[in-house]
Amino acid sequence: MRIGFIGLGKMGSGMAANLLKAGHEVSVYNRTPAKKSALIEQGAHDCPQVADACRGDAVITMLADDPAIENVAFSDKGLVSALKPGVIHICMSTISVALSQRLMQAHADAGQGYVAAPVFGRPDAAAAGKLFIVAAGAPAAVKACEPLFADLGQKTFLIGDQAPLAHLVKLSGNFLIASVIESLGEAMALIGKAGIDKHQYLDLLTSSLFTAPVYKTYGGMIAGETFEPAGFAAPLGLKDIRLALAASESLRVPMPLASLLRDRFLALLADGGDSSDWSGIARLAARDAGQ
Amino acid sequence: MRIGFIGLGKMGSGMAANLLKAGHEVSVYNRTPAKKSALIEQGAHDCPQVADACRGDAVITMLADDPAIENVAFSDKGLVSALKPGVIHICMSTISVALSQRLMQAHADAGQGYVAAPVFGRPDAAAAGKLFIVAAGAPAAVKACEPLFADLGQKTFLIGDQAPLAHLVKLSGNFLIASVIESLGEAMALIGKAGIDKHQYLDLLTSSLFTAPVYKTYGGMIAGETFEPAGFAAPLGLKDIRLALAASESLRVPMPLASLLRDRFLALLADGGDSSDWSGIARLAARDAGQ
Amino acid sequence: MRIGFIGLGKMGSGMAANLLKAGHEVSVYNRTPAKKSALIEQGAHDCPQVADACRGDAVITMLADDPAIENVAFSDKGLVSALKPGVIHICMSTISVALSQRLMQAHADAGQGYVAAPVFGRPDAAAAGKLFIVAAGAPAAVKACEPLFADLGQKTFLIGDQAPLAHLVKLSGNFLIASVIESLGEAMALIGKAGIDKHQYLDLLTSSLFTAPVYKTYGGMIAGETFEPAGFAAPLGLKDIRLALAASESLRVPMPLASLLRDRFLALLADGGDSSDWSGIARLAARDAGQ
Amino acid sequence: MRIGFIGLGKMGSGMAANLLKAGHEVSVYNRTPAKKSALIEQGAHDCPQVADACRGDAVITMLADDPAIENVAFSDKGLVSALKPGVIHICMSTISVALSQRLMQAHADAGQGYVAAPVFGRPDAAAAGKLFIVAAGAPAAVKACEPLFADLGQKTFLIGDQAPLAHLVKLSGNFLIASVIESLGEAMALIGKAGIDKHQYLDLLTSSLFTAPVYKTYGGMIAGETFEPAGFAAPLGLKDIRLALAASESLRVPMPLASLLRDRFLALLADGGDSSDWSGIARLAARDAGQ
Repeated sequence: MRIGFIGLGKMGSGMAANLLKAGHEVSVYNRTPAKKSALIEQGAHDCPQVADACRGDAVITMLADDPAIENVAFSDKGLVSALKPGVIHICMSTISVALSQRLMQAHADAGQGYVAAPVFGRPDAAAAGKLFIVAAGAPAAVKACEPLFADLGQKTFLIGDQAPLAHLVKLSGNFLIASVIESLGEAMALIGKAGIDKHQYLDLLTSSLFTAPVYKTYGGMIAGETFEPAGFAAPLGLKDIRLALAASESLRVPMPLASLLRDRFLALLADGGDSSDWSGIARLAARDAGQ
Repeated sequence: MRIGFIGLGKMGSGMAANLLKAGHEVSVYNRTPAKKSALIEQGAHDCPQVADACRGDAVITMLADDPAIENVAFSDKGLVSALKPGVIHICMSTISVALSQRLMQAHADAGQGYVAAPVFGRPDAAAAGKLFIVAAGAPAAVKACEPLFADLGQKTFLIGDQAPLAHLVKLSGNFLIASVIESLGEAMALIGKAGIDKHQYLDLLTSSLFTAPVYKTYGGMIAGETFEPAGFAAPLGLKDIRLALAASESLRVPMPLASLLRDRFLALLADGGDSSDWSGIARLAARDAGQ
Repeated sequence: MRIGFIGLGKMGSGMAANLLKAGHEVSVYNRTPAKKSALIEQGAHDCPQVADACRGDAVITMLADDPAIENVAFSDKGLVSALKPGVIHICMSTISVALSQRLMQAHADAGQGYVAAPVFGRPDAAAAGKLFIVAAGAPAAVKACEPLFADLGQKTFLIGDQAPLAHLVKLSGNFLIASVIESLGEAMALIGKAGIDKHQYLDLLTSSLFTAPVYKTYGGMIAGETFEPAGFAAPLGLKDIRLALAASESLRVPMPLASLLRDRFLALLADGGDSSDWSGIARLAARDAGQ
Repeated sequence: MRIGFIGLGKMGSGMAANLLKAGHEVSVYNRTPAKKSALIEQGAHDCPQVADACRGDAVITMLADDPAIENVAFSDKGLVSALKPGVIHICMSTISVALSQRLMQAHADAGQGYVAAPVFGRPDAAAAGKLFIVAAGAPAAVKACEPLFADLGQKTFLIGDQAPLAHLVKLSGNFLIASVIESLGEAMALIGKAGIDKHQYLDLLTSSLFTAPVYKTYGGMIAGETFEPAGFAAPLGLKDIRLALAASESLRVPMPLASLLRDRFLALLADGGDSSDWSGIARLAARDAGQ
């Protein structure tokens, strides 16, 4: 397929490379042009403008947050004005449910396709094509994208025909991960202050009831206090919890644990944690315990 | 070995049966005598009094809470007065760190052994000999118990020579499980109110990042709202969170997520949830969302 | 003075009437025209359009929320385009700090004045001219408004020359009031379930340490469970807590009590509380206690 | 009356002095004898043992916590064994509802009187005879104590014939005060980080809606960050919140705000705050905001 790819950060650059390896014709755009170089060397077409990435069968956006997507989608020569009818915008970023709804409407009004397909996985999983992809949208459009998803991830989950619900699922998943981080942070502050070795404790957990990779990955970072460099930075963690809370407010669903996480992220950022991994919220439990 | 076994509830009865199957000579005591019958049929000796269970090489207690252990251990003809020097009390119940410290001291003063060995696993795991055992105590005593642990569980984790720390680890583990329940309860209230099928959502989670059995077990109960009959009843859940909070207070470790769980359990019990499984706290998130 | 008055709800209608009584020339606009009638009978000029209310020395807005203000200020013939240079927009609504900043900038760019002057007090205080007014803005503009404030309120507090800070103070004040409501709700659930009479308890509180009117007003509503009709409706309470949280996020200030309040308001609304007074969050504490 | 007075700390010494001034015959006991000197100079009788303070018409206890009362009441020559039938134990300390129930029962079994009469007010109020007293117990016994209460406080509130309920009311009151501290801490962290002067802000609050002395007293300490020397020390604050939570657990009343306060006190103590006034929890909100 001919794919436009917009957003070449830690996640996007690995994903675009995988599409190239799989034989797709990939045209890349990034606000900071330097990040395009490696992909162009691998055979990608260079797009000076967003509109230049809109000439294929589909365009993938993998951007950091709502404002970045709004800018790329709704500006004068952005996606909504540049895409031809029938071309699909595959939004793989983690954005608000509200913006996803607005995109769905705008693309429908313009006769374009819109598939929401946010991903679970950190940069190493993106580079290895091991992402988990949560997709939703009009069935025909989703079907057309499935081969791409197979090149980018290890498994695709279909959520239905309402694209924004894929973004809701993604946000809820990040809430679940952050909950694991918080619970491990509190538990390790407790057993650590009592003199138990945190690595030994983590080994016990992950060899018994908590075998999921998310416990190993984040538990290791917490036990070792290795929060930098960030795989997923704290400001992005705050953003996702904020978006989960915004969705919960629209739906009138109280989420006290999500509220607790919000305040943790604010405390981390107020403490200078902008470059910390989001798992750095766990050290606040230790700090509050005087450790 | 010749083992006294005190406490034949949902967990203890399966554990005692496994010791019999493994060829141990088991003497059983239970406050409600009827629960002894099945084990006596399988070859256990009947103990009318606690002291009758104290004549072997070790005595295992598997009781519901602190008062039950205090009664069995410190009453007139209880363990501390009845056990001969050198005999080991293996406390496999989930009790407070403070009571575990008191038992450690009392048994040491009486020249008796004391090993803390609480378990992870629900009644089906107890019956199948698939428990995870967290053991701590004087090395020689722990070593003497290891063959028993191999008959009762699939894996034993050694925490060191301070017996009460095994109880702390156990309490922290139940806190982590309850945290999973709360996080799933909030996430499912959110996506459920948006119209996403909870079982499909759970399948997505447990096929991707949340592969641990604890997500499958409790996620299934939450998605299906099948909280009765209880495998682990809500009052016991409250008890364990209370004991974790008591330990956190002694150690001066704030645990806001544990505090949230405490209030959830109180709300569940205030709503008539005494016979609910402890995962029933998840339906409070749905109730608060008007579902 | 010649005053335009926009927004004739429960608060605004009493305020506009007080300006008339004080001898000002008042021109009134309201989206729903019927609410203008009583004031026109009292001598107010009828404004069919927003722009018609912009011809005096100042225009007061007393509207429910950010979207209402945005519409009145930034639409085609709205305040920013209609006010002559030097005329002052006095924004007495409780709005977000971010919108207040945007208004400050837009009016400055247009050579107009902008004074933020949100108020404390419920509709009866508005009608009685007993409001507390928190004002900020350019000193000359604030000075020009002070006679009006004297006609509307019992006391004016000057916060400085940064208008949006008056809105921040107002939001923080509503957070403090909601905190009182929550704390009384929990305390009354506790003593009420123990069998103590709530009214007698409230009398004790307000005759000793908690003599402030806010305890009497809200305590009486909670003890008597008289949450309807609403003086200040639950959706507005949620709005103000949301705006306080938004400001706290911008400033990176964790506010766990504000987060707790947010979830209370969501639970109240999810339970059908749209027409409840915001103090209705207190009955959630009783409900969670099974009362 | 002839009064025994046990417990001459910051509160008790002022209270005993007021009884002397009012013409009562006062016999004083204190674990640390040195604190008796000033009162003996003012005419009090010196009691070397608890039992020596038990020979009058009533004995007042004003001790720091449950263990201190348990020791004085239940030890070999303690109150329960030393008081003659009909003599009244007036428990003015802030103790757990459970201990108050146990005292009520023990004194009833011994034919002695028991009145619970905890107080609101800090040491300066105790010295000035300006306490608020919350009393409960058998009507005749309470009536007999009322003249004493008039000498010790500015107002007495009668809660009924169940003595422990007076302690519940007292604990709920301290919860309400701590809630004020927390809410002010968060609000001042917010407006302070925005650049508003905290003293000016407090003046606004206490001149408008928050006129109660509790806002002035604690608000001034928070704005000025003057948490030492402590009027009421942080460990006592933690104790009272713990006792409120224990009562809430017995009654099955979730209290999320009380849970938040518990964790604040733990964080303060973990941070070395043992000698801080309990209002020191407010600086944690500022710390979490990076201030």
